[in-house]
Amino acid sequence: MATPKRDTYTPETLLSVAVRVFNERGYDGTSMEHLSKAAGISKSSIYHHVAGKEELLRRAVSRALDGLFAILDEAGAQQGRAVERVEYVTRRTVEVLTAELPYVTLLLRVRGNTTTERWALERRREFDQRVAELLKAAVADGDLRADVDIRLATRLLFGMVNSLVEWYRPHTGPGGEADRAQLADTVVHLAFDGLRTAS
Amino acid sequence: MATPKRDTYTPETLLSVAVRVFNERGYDGTSMEHLSKAAGISKSSIYHHVAGKEELLRRAVSRALDGLFAILDEAGAQQGRAVERVEYVTRRTVEVLTAELPYVTLLLRVRGNTTTERWALERRREFDQRVAELLKAAVADGDLRADVDIRLATRLLFGMVNSLVEWYRPHTGPGGEADRAQLADTVVHLAFDGLRTAS
Repeated sequence: MATPKRDTYTPETLLSVAVRVFNERGYDGTSMEHLSKAAGISKSSIYHHVAGKEELLRRAVSRALDGLFAILDEAGAQQGRAVERVEYVTRRTVEVLTAELPYVTLLLRVRGNTTTERWALERRREFDQRVAELLKAAVADGDLRADVDIRLATRLLFGMVNSLVEWYRPHTGPGGEADRAQLADTVVHLAFDGLRTAS
Repeated sequence: MATPKRDTYTPETLLSVAVRVFNERGYDGTSMEHLSKAAGISKSSIYHHVAGKEELLRRAVSRALDGLFAILDEAGAQQGRAVERVEYVTRRTVEVLTAELPYVTLLLRVRGNTTTERWALERRREFDQRVAELLKAAVADGDLRADVDIRLATRLLFGMVNSLVEWYRPHTGPGGEADRAQLADTVVHLAFDGLRTAS
């Protein structure tokens, strides 16, 4: 007798399947039936793990949000001049984004139709706001140009960073780590050598 | 007797309704029924204008693509140093994007499921390629940093520019024009003061 597939499932593996399906079909376009087929387990097995697809969405976007917010508590984001802190946060955001690509992709595609989606949008705005405050402090220090609107600069900065989910494909195997570090370097160079006051 | 609404319809107005619905529901999620309801005309009236929804998609993305490609033929994109030409193209891309917002939004969301979508993706790549060549020429002139991978720089540049469709909302009424010009200025500053070799 074959061991039922579902025995190998954990909330973690179910989550990674759900995120893949959400990203492929869109959250609205995904039914429990789709998730059941993709995971190769019955709907009742899924309900054994979670209350429904919205719980899977909440867990998935939480993983992305926790990764992003954790950056703000790191030493590099807490100590030093504001300009160094904002560069650090930008670099680490690129790293978290590439490390947690499917989760952040899902987070960035959230639209706001459900309570969970509205909560996720609110948390994203909160993160952007924290970065905007750092940018503002760096302008006050005279390290970033005062002639750029902070709100606009924050949007363009995240526009550039977040675009990664559309075209970045993880480089697995040797060199992958160096690849991600080079990407983070390039983003920081592009963004800040532009924002920094001429020396 | 009320004049039937459809008499006021032209291919142009039908197109603008279709683009709105495609952007709201996604192209795949839009049926002729949805278009008929949104336009307030019968399906057969729509078929009087176009062969089907793919023709509407083709016309809509063509409008965006024609606007973008026309930039490359303008004097500012043809004459002068490569760095000035690429700055000009970036500024004008922002302007076309904000002027043709719903059409460019649709273009940027195209996925490649139909012939028209694959053609649109191909044309987008062609445009990006033309800009990448300008960037390369500016690097060869010594005006842009040689330590940045051109392909990566092009993607980040368009990542920043294209993010506008996610958050830019047209400022109508007086000041709208100035608003768009300021936006284009900021994008060019952010992108190029970072790319330009230190003077």
